Amino acid sequence: MSAQDALKTLYESVKEVGIIGSCAAVLGWDERTYMPKGGQENRANQLAYLSGLAHEKFTNEKIGELLKEIEASGQIKDEFSDDGANIREIRNEYDKAVKVPKKLVEEITHTSTMAQGVWGEARENSDFPKFLPYLEKLVKLKRELAECYGYEKEAYDALLDDYEPGATYESIGKVFEAFRSELVDLVAKIADSKKRPDMSIIEQEYAVDRQKIFGESAAAAIGYDFGIGRLDETTHPFCTGIGPGDTRITTRFNPKHLGQAFFGIMHEAGHGIYEQGLPTEHHGLPMGDAVSLGIHESQSRMWENLVGRSQPFWKHFFPRAQQMFPLALGNVKFDDFLFAINDVRPSLIRIEADEVTYNLHILLRFEIEHAFFKGDLEPKDVPAVWNENFKKYLGIEPPDDARGCLQDIHWSWGMIGYFPTYTLGNLYSAQFYAKAKEDIPDLESQFEIGNFAPMKGWLRKHIHIHGRRYRAEKLVEVATGKPLSHKPMMDYMRTKYGELYGF
Amino acid sequence: MSAQDALKTLYESVKEVGIIGSCAAVLGWDERTYMPKGGQENRANQLAYLSGLAHEKFTNEKIGELLKEIEASGQIKDEFSDDGANIREIRNEYDKAVKVPKKLVEEITHTSTMAQGVWGEARENSDFPKFLPYLEKLVKLKRELAECYGYEKEAYDALLDDYEPGATYESIGKVFEAFRSELVDLVAKIADSKKRPDMSIIEQEYAVDRQKIFGESAAAAIGYDFGIGRLDETTHPFCTGIGPGDTRITTRFNPKHLGQAFFGIMHEAGHGIYEQGLPTEHHGLPMGDAVSLGIHESQSRMWENLVGRSQPFWKHFFPRAQQMFPLALGNVKFDDFLFAINDVRPSLIRIEADEVTYNLHILLRFEIEHAFFKGDLEPKDVPAVWNENFKKYLGIEPPDDARGCLQDIHWSWGMIGYFPTYTLGNLYSAQFYAKAKEDIPDLESQFEIGNFAPMKGWLRKHIHIHGRRYRAEKLVEVATGKPLSHKPMMDYMRTKYGELYGF
Repeated sequence: MSAQDALKTLYESVKEVGIIGSCAAVLGWDERTYMPKGGQENRANQLAYLSGLAHEKFTNEKIGELLKEIEASGQIKDEFSDDGANIREIRNEYDKAVKVPKKLVEEITHTSTMAQGVWGEARENSDFPKFLPYLEKLVKLKRELAECYGYEKEAYDALLDDYEPGATYESIGKVFEAFRSELVDLVAKIADSKKRPDMSIIEQEYAVDRQKIFGESAAAAIGYDFGIGRLDETTHPFCTGIGPGDTRITTRFNPKHLGQAFFGIMHEAGHGIYEQGLPTEHHGLPMGDAVSLGIHESQSRMWENLVGRSQPFWKHFFPRAQQMFPLALGNVKFDDFLFAINDVRPSLIRIEADEVTYNLHILLRFEIEHAFFKGDLEPKDVPAVWNENFKKYLGIEPPDDARGCLQDIHWSWGMIGYFPTYTLGNLYSAQFYAKAKEDIPDLESQFEIGNFAPMKGWLRKHIHIHGRRYRAEKLVEVATGKPLSHKPMMDYMRTKYGELYGF
Repeated sequence: MSAQDALKTLYESVKEVGIIGSCAAVLGWDERTYMPKGGQENRANQLAYLSGLAHEKFTNEKIGELLKEIEASGQIKDEFSDDGANIREIRNEYDKAVKVPKKLVEEITHTSTMAQGVWGEARENSDFPKFLPYLEKLVKLKRELAECYGYEKEAYDALLDDYEPGATYESIGKVFEAFRSELVDLVAKIADSKKRPDMSIIEQEYAVDRQKIFGESAAAAIGYDFGIGRLDETTHPFCTGIGPGDTRITTRFNPKHLGQAFFGIMHEAGHGIYEQGLPTEHHGLPMGDAVSLGIHESQSRMWENLVGRSQPFWKHFFPRAQQMFPLALGNVKFDDFLFAINDVRPSLIRIEADEVTYNLHILLRFEIEHAFFKGDLEPKDVPAVWNENFKKYLGIEPPDDARGCLQDIHWSWGMIGYFPTYTLGNLYSAQFYAKAKEDIPDLESQFEIGNFAPMKGWLRKHIHIHGRRYRAEKLVEVATGKPLSHKPMMDYMRTKYGELYGF
């Protein structure tokens, strides 16, 4: 077989796995939106079958042989060409998939299924010792997994690679540490400020049907295409890219809060615009896929926060909001509204946190999980360290573990190395945004007249159309000309919140 | 391998095909309800992949070998036992699946895809000659298919078997002929009657949200379980059994007509109650599946017409309808309402026909397709024969082919042998209903107090829980003690419409 034929055959096989995943995505969306309750067991069987089938197809020896043949042919000269990136990423995933014994995968699945149930009870009763043995077991299993994967510097990197391919503790840890110390200062400054927004502006009656119309119109305005997408309601909002021409987002409406659904929609629409911008001709291959969770999050956070909570954005949308909600907003001043949607205050729960303090929630988790995974921290000591650091970073102390280290489900899922992608996303978003503003001087004055095409166009050109050509670290350098830094995010926050809180 | 092991292995393989089908059912439902327009091509790829996979798995030689082994073991002694029925039906389907060359399947698919497009244009312009070459081609291909399948008496039977397993032209043709001649008389009598209902009663404003509540409450009352089902809106209503605990129905609302959605919901709920009543422990095997399209239609027609348009049903529901729609129905007399929902009048379009004339539309199609498939009628002569017989049966003549022989899409899909299942469904329903009334003397007085459990219970016991234990012909005999006959249907219609139209 010629290298060209091998490539073609390999792509066909990998695309087959992609189609199976695309079917599973429809079933997953349906499960969370419209499936009758009674369908749970059948759905679990369907999804288990599809994921087993995908694994079986992807770990087929034929794929390994084709990869070897293509690599040996020397035809792939540039790892950043379409084929180069595809082969690099397929190789990475294939190696990981075949290196892990089935028994270990099953044990992790089984343990995390058990752990989720126990975690739910433990959180309810704020009973960390109950959850502890499962956390210990999961750490042990995930260490085994990391050993199977292999790594250069430390085992944690092998787990990071599942969520942020190529990222290492070393590469992101330094940026995070610098970020944290400056961020703690900023949060303290805001907490010291006497200025406080009037939250009753956004915490009042907002009819859900109007929220839906308003949120959809904003999503459409920033470039989420409803001809190849839709918006539904779910308890936990999400975005799912089913395949070319079919990307869906969901939200949850609170009839007594304008912001929850609105910024939720902006966030998911950001994910959706990324999915809709991936090159369809590569669908099913790495070049047709998103870079990483962090890069995905950079897109959602960009539209939700950097654009969606900005003054220029609301120059355009505030008069529209007033027309849509005359009772609630008719007599509200623009500046008061803007301040209310940018309220910053330290709070206990990550998912309710504002864009500034949110990162401290993440950095705390990152440091703790890295420590207990590495063995520097005994899992039994997690609550004490959590509470101590929480107080140090945010100035408040969790009254119990339910509102402390037990609040998130992720560790019970065995997701270690996942949390940092949130703060990576935030940092990427600020760095991308700063560069876009540099490239397009009137970017924000275009927002003021409701034109978001230049922003979307910049993201299309520099991020979306590349699929997984570059890994995140490299993509940031290629797109912005600089390595990842916390500075653009700090600059953005200092300027914005300095103005709002008067320092 | 012991016969017991072979059986177990066979069932696992067949259930795997069932899971694939169940996934495809979710994708099919989604396609017709909520999928964004842009998802069409990806959905076609997904469904093609799943159907190819299912075919590949089902036609695997291993299945043939296992079947042979089980049959040779002599362990299966009763073809109506659970295993007996499973083996009988798997054998029938397997033989059909492996007998057809892939090339022929592809040619039929390709031709019918082309034919559908041409049919659409031909209907629009009432241009039968345009469609003729495709009809001729499809007849030729379907003859080849019938030859591959094999048959005992005539080729048409091989096609019937796809929709109504075991049915033959001989077995149903005689019943249909007797039915037709009596039915033509009844329709003529009704047409001659001076009595006519006041159709403005149901053809007026009915708010869609209230129609939905009213329809859902009726579906729930007759026993469609919304805990394992749901109701959505689509252009073309349907019911789909996705798997255990998940059966869904759809409808279309007309804001100026009460009956279209209401009886549509009753109809689909009837299909749904059947699917919900299939034995879940056999899911994925013939014993967990519906007998045939005809038996399925008997369940929908039963609830839609024999129950849903009956006087006892409305004794319970009419006061509720009046409460729900006080403006439209507050001053309407019960008898006038009942007459309006049982209006019978010859009309040109099958899908708009009432329960009496509907069967003549079907019998006409059955006779014509049988004749052109057998070679007794040239496809080019279809319009002439259609119009002549239509006039003979219904007393009116189609003004053009668009409203005549070109009105249905089915022949362009290559569906020959499909139409008769509608009238079979009607005949079965009347025969089942008559027997249920005999077995449960107060059946209808229970309807009057809103108790439909005895009716549903009878269907569960005699039909639903048997899955495909019996083929339709045999099921009718086992459930009613008599072979299929047109008499129960004629008795039902003569009594009901004699009273309404005064003869």
